[in-house]
Amino acid sequence: MGLDGPVLVVGAGLLGTSIALALRRRAVDVALRDVSAENLRIATGLGAANLDAVDVRPQLVVVAVPPDHLAEEVATALTGTDAAVTDVGSVKGAPLSGARGLVTGPQLARYVGSHPMAGSERSGPFAASAALFDGRPWAVTPHEQADPDAVTLVTDLVRLCGATPVTFTPDEHDEAVARTSHLPHLVAALVAGRLTDAPRDHLALSGQGVRDVTRIAAGDPAMWQQIIRANNQALTGLLRDMRDDVDRLLSALGDADPAPLTGVLERGVQGTAVIPGKHGGPSHAETTLFVAVPDHPGELARLLADAGEIGVNIEDLRIDHDPAREYGLVELSVFADAADHLLASLEDRGWTTHR
Amino acid sequence: MGLDGPVLVVGAGLLGTSIALALRRRAVDVALRDVSAENLRIATGLGAANLDAVDVRPQLVVVAVPPDHLAEEVATALTGTDAAVTDVGSVKGAPLSGARGLVTGPQLARYVGSHPMAGSERSGPFAASAALFDGRPWAVTPHEQADPDAVTLVTDLVRLCGATPVTFTPDEHDEAVARTSHLPHLVAALVAGRLTDAPRDHLALSGQGVRDVTRIAAGDPAMWQQIIRANNQALTGLLRDMRDDVDRLLSALGDADPAPLTGVLERGVQGTAVIPGKHGGPSHAETTLFVAVPDHPGELARLLADAGEIGVNIEDLRIDHDPAREYGLVELSVFADAADHLLASLEDRGWTTHR
Repeated sequence: MGLDGPVLVVGAGLLGTSIALALRRRAVDVALRDVSAENLRIATGLGAANLDAVDVRPQLVVVAVPPDHLAEEVATALTGTDAAVTDVGSVKGAPLSGARGLVTGPQLARYVGSHPMAGSERSGPFAASAALFDGRPWAVTPHEQADPDAVTLVTDLVRLCGATPVTFTPDEHDEAVARTSHLPHLVAALVAGRLTDAPRDHLALSGQGVRDVTRIAAGDPAMWQQIIRANNQALTGLLRDMRDDVDRLLSALGDADPAPLTGVLERGVQGTAVIPGKHGGPSHAETTLFVAVPDHPGELARLLADAGEIGVNIEDLRIDHDPAREYGLVELSVFADAADHLLASLEDRGWTTHR
Repeated sequence: MGLDGPVLVVGAGLLGTSIALALRRRAVDVALRDVSAENLRIATGLGAANLDAVDVRPQLVVVAVPPDHLAEEVATALTGTDAAVTDVGSVKGAPLSGARGLVTGPQLARYVGSHPMAGSERSGPFAASAALFDGRPWAVTPHEQADPDAVTLVTDLVRLCGATPVTFTPDEHDEAVARTSHLPHLVAALVAGRLTDAPRDHLALSGQGVRDVTRIAAGDPAMWQQIIRANNQALTGLLRDMRDDVDRLLSALGDADPAPLTGVLERGVQGTAVIPGKHGGPSHAETTLFVAVPDHPGELARLLADAGEIGVNIEDLRIDHDPAREYGLVELSVFADAADHLLASLEDRGWTTHR
């Protein structure tokens, strides 16, 4: 590979420290820089760096700072070194246009943005892991004047971190994540926010559905605010579409003809089917079984040991909590053709199941 | 208990057959009726009924037909028998007002609506189970003129089915489920529907967030259309609020001040915290760990056996699929104070983990 280091990582938070750890795992020389001496001390203590940032001459600089500081740090890296430079922000147009105003054209050619599809609701170097990117997609977003050598180095970085590179233009990337990440986040926040208006006893009727829809709304508001504002343009269009959709729904609700409402719901079903399945392949027929499992250590293991002996692979698993008793209903997703066999075999082994 | 049967169940679909099976489990006499001879044959074959519907004189009639037919079947049961009558539809105001137009006041006193918080994305008697309601909330929604004896019988039904009765007025119930179920369903359908506009390669950037937000949008459009239209009134108000929220978001996106957007996001965080935790208790601090698990039978069991031996209870578990390789990242939710111990102990046992 072209990338053999040293790599300078700017920002020793969750992503920066994880990248540094992943590179050290592959024996690439790494130096770390952070405005927080505390973060730097923790990350270095975890083994994320083996070189001093002061006198390193990097082959690649990875900028992993909060969204609002990306452009200035990318520009600093481009003007202060002759290295290729990437950043790992969630939005790609904003740091590019910000940096374009701060550096010369030849300097900008060394910049190639990127965005790993990995994270955690935790942040900071303590949450970091060399395994964070294993098998994840990682967008690489060269601009039109990008130096092909810089693109190669950034693609090498992605592979060294164990991730899968996916190439987009910066605008395509931002449009894609507006739809697949930022709009869902905003909508989850709105639905969750409306729960705060409800009398508390109404929330006893909350099921798994509303939990799923609102889960991501628990993310850090300070960080999401920066991400969303940086992707302002793509999101504004989608939010206008969403407002039009809500208006159409309101008129469909008042319509004597059920067809418009059914149309909205059918389109939703189609949308769930176009999300890629696991392993990036097409989604395929899975079915769901429920098993009652006592809610203490070891019982879930016993269930899964039984499923393993029966020889059926569990595609997904949810613990759907029993609001009144000390056990859980476990929802197992399996390939449809294995479901009958699993169900009968689990019942034979004494489990209470249903579909 | 007051309810000792016989019970007539009208509608041998998923819910009706499951109720019949749950009652038979407790040795209550049950008769079944369905317009579909096929459904009736299957449900009876499963052991859901022990009496002939023709000559039964029921103590309680349970109406479990599609939403659009609830009012007429409730009215038929009230005029054709002297039994208490309940239905198990997802909306409670519409069947009540429909039935009120079809029967006398004294007849209506025997009607007490109800709504079990249980279901499946499958339907029909083959999907039925006596365990479907175990430990679930089940709303009981007496109207103002309801006969207290009928309320007692319906509450007994809920308990005999293994569920937990929760009392609401019909309007309160409909307002609660509009917010906790129907609005989330519609919004999930809109977000999912917008995915169908996207170039397919953009969807490679779909993460767990958009999967969670859109999952319930896969539900049957024909049934949801009836549910949503029946709860028209409560939903119209919430959808208008949602449109106002989207408008506020659009202006927050264009605002130089980040505070309005941060406010929306912070309210979302608060909303996720008010959903009751498992076992109906308050939600409590959980934290998430990731473990890499080979994607074949038995490996997940081995992980959970290890967690069981370590003595840490798994609160929730997700299999977060690796798009590029044949293994999964398993996301374990545990109480925050147990996380460090579990993480260290799993690493000791050779698992690759990260937070």
